[in-house]
Amino acid sequence: MNKWYVENGEQGDIVISTRVRLARNLEDYPFPCRLTVKGKEAVCEEIKNVILENDTWGFSYAKMKDFTRAQAVSLAERHLISPEFASDRAGRALMLTDDEAVSIMLCEEDHIRLQVMMAGLALKEAYTVADKIDNIIGSKLNYAYDNRIGYLTQCPTNLGTAMRASVMLHLPALTRCGQIGKLASTVSKLGLTIRGAYGEGSSPRGDIYQLSNQITLGISEESALNNLQSITLQLVAQERAAAERLIENPVEEDKIFRAKGILENARVLSGDEFMELASLLRMGISCKAVDYDITRLNELVVRVQPATINAAEEKELTASQRDILRAKWVREALTV
Amino acid sequence: MNKWYVENGEQGDIVISTRVRLARNLEDYPFPCRLTVKGKEAVCEEIKNVILENDTWGFSYAKMKDFTRAQAVSLAERHLISPEFASDRAGRALMLTDDEAVSIMLCEEDHIRLQVMMAGLALKEAYTVADKIDNIIGSKLNYAYDNRIGYLTQCPTNLGTAMRASVMLHLPALTRCGQIGKLASTVSKLGLTIRGAYGEGSSPRGDIYQLSNQITLGISEESALNNLQSITLQLVAQERAAAERLIENPVEEDKIFRAKGILENARVLSGDEFMELASLLRMGISCKAVDYDITRLNELVVRVQPATINAAEEKELTASQRDILRAKWVREALTV
Repeated sequence: MNKWYVENGEQGDIVISTRVRLARNLEDYPFPCRLTVKGKEAVCEEIKNVILENDTWGFSYAKMKDFTRAQAVSLAERHLISPEFASDRAGRALMLTDDEAVSIMLCEEDHIRLQVMMAGLALKEAYTVADKIDNIIGSKLNYAYDNRIGYLTQCPTNLGTAMRASVMLHLPALTRCGQIGKLASTVSKLGLTIRGAYGEGSSPRGDIYQLSNQITLGISEESALNNLQSITLQLVAQERAAAERLIENPVEEDKIFRAKGILENARVLSGDEFMELASLLRMGISCKAVDYDITRLNELVVRVQPATINAAEEKELTASQRDILRAKWVREALTV
Repeated sequence: MNKWYVENGEQGDIVISTRVRLARNLEDYPFPCRLTVKGKEAVCEEIKNVILENDTWGFSYAKMKDFTRAQAVSLAERHLISPEFASDRAGRALMLTDDEAVSIMLCEEDHIRLQVMMAGLALKEAYTVADKIDNIIGSKLNYAYDNRIGYLTQCPTNLGTAMRASVMLHLPALTRCGQIGKLASTVSKLGLTIRGAYGEGSSPRGDIYQLSNQITLGISEESALNNLQSITLQLVAQERAAAERLIENPVEEDKIFRAKGILENARVLSGDEFMELASLLRMGISCKAVDYDITRLNELVVRVQPATINAAEEKELTASQRDILRAKWVREALTV
């Protein structure tokens, strides 16, 4: 089955992916931080049974302790679990669909962290799936819920809808024009936050940002999603305009094509350089300067992460060995 | 008619070209530096008539003052005339064959500077052609010749055979291994000199060197050519061995393929960067890592020189305009 990230979604050249995450807790148990390993295992078991009995999505279930460290880090690299969930695996479990679009972390910070990922801009579609699974669990188990506040979560910033919706945006032109700082302060007034998806700073790795809702209390899921949707579309329009201006400059056009040339030919390629060059290539595809299937690039970004390479090769490679393998895979994918 | 540099000669991946140059003066005239413009024109006229009456090579004749500055500089870029000959054009003339293999500067430092260029290692072949033309002129006009010394030339370093033979060598691996300094001192003991063909220094532009004979007095042409031939073959063998060792290192192999990728894709390319990348590509071709027709690279090296671009476009382009045009021509030539 194709993974979710091989699809090309709406606005897929700029909106890499959409994620909707719901946090839930069971009324009958303390929060995971107050549970023993045995207690966590009981929670995992209870939720697993409900989901597998009503499963139309094809979930698999695995205890986190059954994964090797490389496999766990690879899951984190693919954003299927949090890095924290990968590092402390005792008593925890993961449910995952074949296409990796839906993942449920059991006994992370909350009992249930249900997330749905889709390619491109697909906030309503992702929420619909999350909502259905949530309803199934909620109809069989008692959620910790307060009529005045909403869903109860360990961290107070999630209280209320306990929903975090986000989009991964590729904003190379706005980054180059130095406009991200201004954007960040504008979106924060609108209840959203934007930050580097891979590392912080003014120019994050691959020029990829995560835009997400901040407010969960006193707002409906629908309002939060509509707000995020409309601001995303505005940012996409701004990025498109900035990229079109940028690429008229032969020096910027040159950078895009050199990136393509290096990706297609390099024999040694570090992860950081790959992300930088892939960002330029993606901008070139978005501006129609380069003719290339963007979904192949999406797949590459996932495949060439360090632990994901190790997991695929089933051994602990050195960084230099990975750099050679990464270059090979990139070359093969781009020059088919 | 194809230019001489489009051929691929013997050892053509490393020996770019061979040049044999003879200096001659007419007994009946002072050296050019002691001639008026009218006197120089008389010398040019006399030699021209002899050559055109016995021409089996297809010479054209042109007064240097009839060339624009860009055309004259382009001739120098193609090594058909000396830069000094291009800058002071009064009273001087040039004879040139269609394939640009034979050029005769009239009233440069000496009355006659006859040079034959051939692709690859072709010392005997080039000398044979030069010798034939020399015999024709010598049978009709009196050369300044001394039985004890040989041919008389303005500069005492040319006295005797007045022959300078040289090969252009591409030595990227020996350069990278830091062996050129040692080589230079070795060949100087053998009566030869090696220096950067484009600019001096330990790592000249494009890693291209000129190896030439130093001694013209008390030695026959044949001995000088044999000596140069045998040392050239030794250097070629050393370069091949060094390149094979070098390319086993993935980091060095990577440099070669990145150079290829940038040359095939860049939209802006300076002359210096082109020479650097072309050198890496040539090494890759020589090691059979890259499959590419080396003669197309030879042609490019000539075509994308600044004045040669201006001459082809028939206008004075800015450096930025040339960088864009150079990138385009390189791209087109490499991705046919």
